[in-house]
Amino acid sequence: MDDQEVKLLGVWGSCPSKRVEIALKMKGINYEFVAQDLSNKSPELLQYNPVHKKVPVLLHNGKPICESQVILEYIDETWKSGPSILPQDPHARALARFWARFIDDTCFPAIQRIKRSQGDDERERAIDEAMEHLKTLENELKGKKFFGGDEIGLVDIAANFVALWLDVILELVGIKLLTKEKFPRLCDWVDDYLNCSIIKETLPAREDLLDRFRAISRWLAKNNM
Amino acid sequence: MDDQEVKLLGVWGSCPSKRVEIALKMKGINYEFVAQDLSNKSPELLQYNPVHKKVPVLLHNGKPICESQVILEYIDETWKSGPSILPQDPHARALARFWARFIDDTCFPAIQRIKRSQGDDERERAIDEAMEHLKTLENELKGKKFFGGDEIGLVDIAANFVALWLDVILELVGIKLLTKEKFPRLCDWVDDYLNCSIIKETLPAREDLLDRFRAISRWLAKNNM
Repeated sequence: MDDQEVKLLGVWGSCPSKRVEIALKMKGINYEFVAQDLSNKSPELLQYNPVHKKVPVLLHNGKPICESQVILEYIDETWKSGPSILPQDPHARALARFWARFIDDTCFPAIQRIKRSQGDDERERAIDEAMEHLKTLENELKGKKFFGGDEIGLVDIAANFVALWLDVILELVGIKLLTKEKFPRLCDWVDDYLNCSIIKETLPAREDLLDRFRAISRWLAKNNM
Repeated sequence: MDDQEVKLLGVWGSCPSKRVEIALKMKGINYEFVAQDLSNKSPELLQYNPVHKKVPVLLHNGKPICESQVILEYIDETWKSGPSILPQDPHARALARFWARFIDDTCFPAIQRIKRSQGDDERERAIDEAMEHLKTLENELKGKKFFGGDEIGLVDIAANFVALWLDVILELVGIKLLTKEKFPRLCDWVDDYLNCSIIKETLPAREDLLDRFRAISRWLAKNNM
């Protein structure tokens, strides 16, 4: 499988792009990272993801695959080398898919609502809701090192949002949700996760990401967006 | 596999519940349908889907699986009898997953925005957006009878929303989007799809669904919800 061309259209600070990089590294696949400028979308991005015009896009021998969770399943089905991303048992696979969707469809929008909330009441409600979802994730870690068990899997890769982006996004609005007192298991998971060698070499440093997000926020405010 | 217990917690007029019924029938699996009252959620529903408290929930020998698209993949992986719901080739599988997500994550919210829009401008914008997404689906059907090719597959099952619910939901607010002139392929697909024997015996009749949705709308208005 060495004559294969694997390209990833991605963005340095994008949580979904990083998921795909983690999966490719887990499988030991060489790939070319083609950095995208989302403020001036490339013809390649518009050609290969005409529906959403978003990163990440994986190009495997010229064939595009879009949407990070779809790409993760594609990588697991295509390259049998390296550890499995999804478990083998159908029920365990269903649970992994359920929790990966929970992170994108439920947790991520809740954090966005905190950021966009206006007024103390609205913010308070948004925080309560996000805390409830994090509690749900906290319970899911009972008796486990990773969401995937002893090793990282689909849910852990999807949860890179929780391990890094969540805290950075909330720091921009002066809020801290993930504390050892309230979420001991989730905080231990963050430590263990960020300490895995593949994760460490793939995710950006917290301070660099925070700087980048601050710059984007300033630019958006300056342009009334 | 005859000694297996398969139960579906569902709702008669629910599009996601019907997806699961279609998949079970395609695979020839006997199941018990346990009707749920969402205005008074059963202990069983709360026990087996404590996170979302929603239908459908598939119980296979007592093990719960939630979220319709997750359940469809579970059914396809568990029962190899009957036609495949997902294609075998990893790239074709990724495309099927992409389009199934597009229906739930992009088309469905766009239709909801039309229903909830206030004022002509907001409604006009919501309609334009929904039309654009339907055009995307229309293009995807180029040269194909079904989204899955010659036979129905994951995307067609997910698109039961487009085949029936979309039109009924919009009729409640006096709007018709799916016309032969604007969406000839999509309208042909709706005809072919609703004519498949499994689909015909599973989906509710359009007028019955409309009556039910009208009754729900009246109830919600009466209770200021």
